[in-house]
Amino acid sequence: MEPILTDSQLLQALRWRYATKVFDPTRQIPADIWATLQEALVLSASSFGLQPYRFIVVNDPTVRARLLAHAWGQRQVVDAARFIVFAARTAMTEAEIDRFLDRMIAVRGGNRTALAGYRQMMTDSLLSPTAAARIPHWAARQCYIALGNLLTCAALLGVDTCPMEGFVPAEFDQVLGLAAQGYAAVVCCALGYRSVADKYASAPKVRFPAQELIQTV
Amino acid sequence: MEPILTDSQLLQALRWRYATKVFDPTRQIPADIWATLQEALVLSASSFGLQPYRFIVVNDPTVRARLLAHAWGQRQVVDAARFIVFAARTAMTEAEIDRFLDRMIAVRGGNRTALAGYRQMMTDSLLSPTAAARIPHWAARQCYIALGNLLTCAALLGVDTCPMEGFVPAEFDQVLGLAAQGYAAVVCCALGYRSVADKYASAPKVRFPAQELIQTV
Repeated sequence: MEPILTDSQLLQALRWRYATKVFDPTRQIPADIWATLQEALVLSASSFGLQPYRFIVVNDPTVRARLLAHAWGQRQVVDAARFIVFAARTAMTEAEIDRFLDRMIAVRGGNRTALAGYRQMMTDSLLSPTAAARIPHWAARQCYIALGNLLTCAALLGVDTCPMEGFVPAEFDQVLGLAAQGYAAVVCCALGYRSVADKYASAPKVRFPAQELIQTV
Repeated sequence: MEPILTDSQLLQALRWRYATKVFDPTRQIPADIWATLQEALVLSASSFGLQPYRFIVVNDPTVRARLLAHAWGQRQVVDAARFIVFAARTAMTEAEIDRFLDRMIAVRGGNRTALAGYRQMMTDSLLSPTAAARIPHWAARQCYIALGNLLTCAALLGVDTCPMEGFVPAEFDQVLGLAAQGYAAVVCCALGYRSVADKYASAPKVRFPAQELIQTV
């Protein structure tokens, strides 16, 4: 496939992106752009393709206000046009693996017998005696792939974002009823449009020199 | 900022992307595109902006062959044009936080006194008595933001990728000498161009229905 955009267009979007501290609470994200960003989340890559997460889009202002109380009062939680909580599975089961295989068969055809080797690989990795302790970390990491994808996609569509780890996960789980569903909040992302009052928008990006971050062997 | 591309262009790239199983070992990534992808990595978002990672680009075929032995023989390790190991910091220190603050001052001006509050927030979060056990997980998650960003940027530039968790991290650490530098391999990414022989390239994407993955509150 030919590049969809030029190097300089891509870098323009990445340089424009920053962790937005102050959102314009009056600006909404157009419906078509929001639909695309949701589709981008769905299209994220994940381990084995298992998608061990849910994306909780919190629109209800009352719920947003309750989350704000457990997010150190960071106003992005209530001021951004959209607010997503990334919730990772806390355990894996045979049933969940089979749910995915059933979906694979529904989309691609085939049958369980043909997927037996793939199933074995997943159960060996995810249901071994030592795996249970790893699962929440493994699932959380997959959420972060989706987050990284979303930050970039949003920037390309001119939408500002603020990834947020500064909240009390157990309180978020309780407000959103996540534990009962087998999920736990791991990271959030506010989306919308920067306020002209956000002084961080014009601050130069701080990155270590490339030769310190990237090591070639 | 106006969108850099259209919704359909973005979705075209995301749908074109897949975890490439067979790379064309004869195709290299043009230098300008590779430079852009490296810059995209550097521009990734991270917690507090601390960039607690290094990206190890493994070009040496001998080293690639040694890694292959600890990656279940997955040929992407040796066949892809580029191979990146994402290495996360295993501990945080006052010195590392100060290295970042010094960089911030070098880029933006200002002084340590003005950044005292920011420093305190970072030390409270990352150097507390209970933090040490969390740090490797926290740093690993930041690597995954960079990975998610990279997968999307590569697709937009027509470059195929394969994110890889199937390797023995401790062996990778040894081959690359990462532990001595305070880092640990957490995930890898092969980049290049798909082989016409890769039957997975044409397989429909398997995703749970959006209404199962995305929950609106």
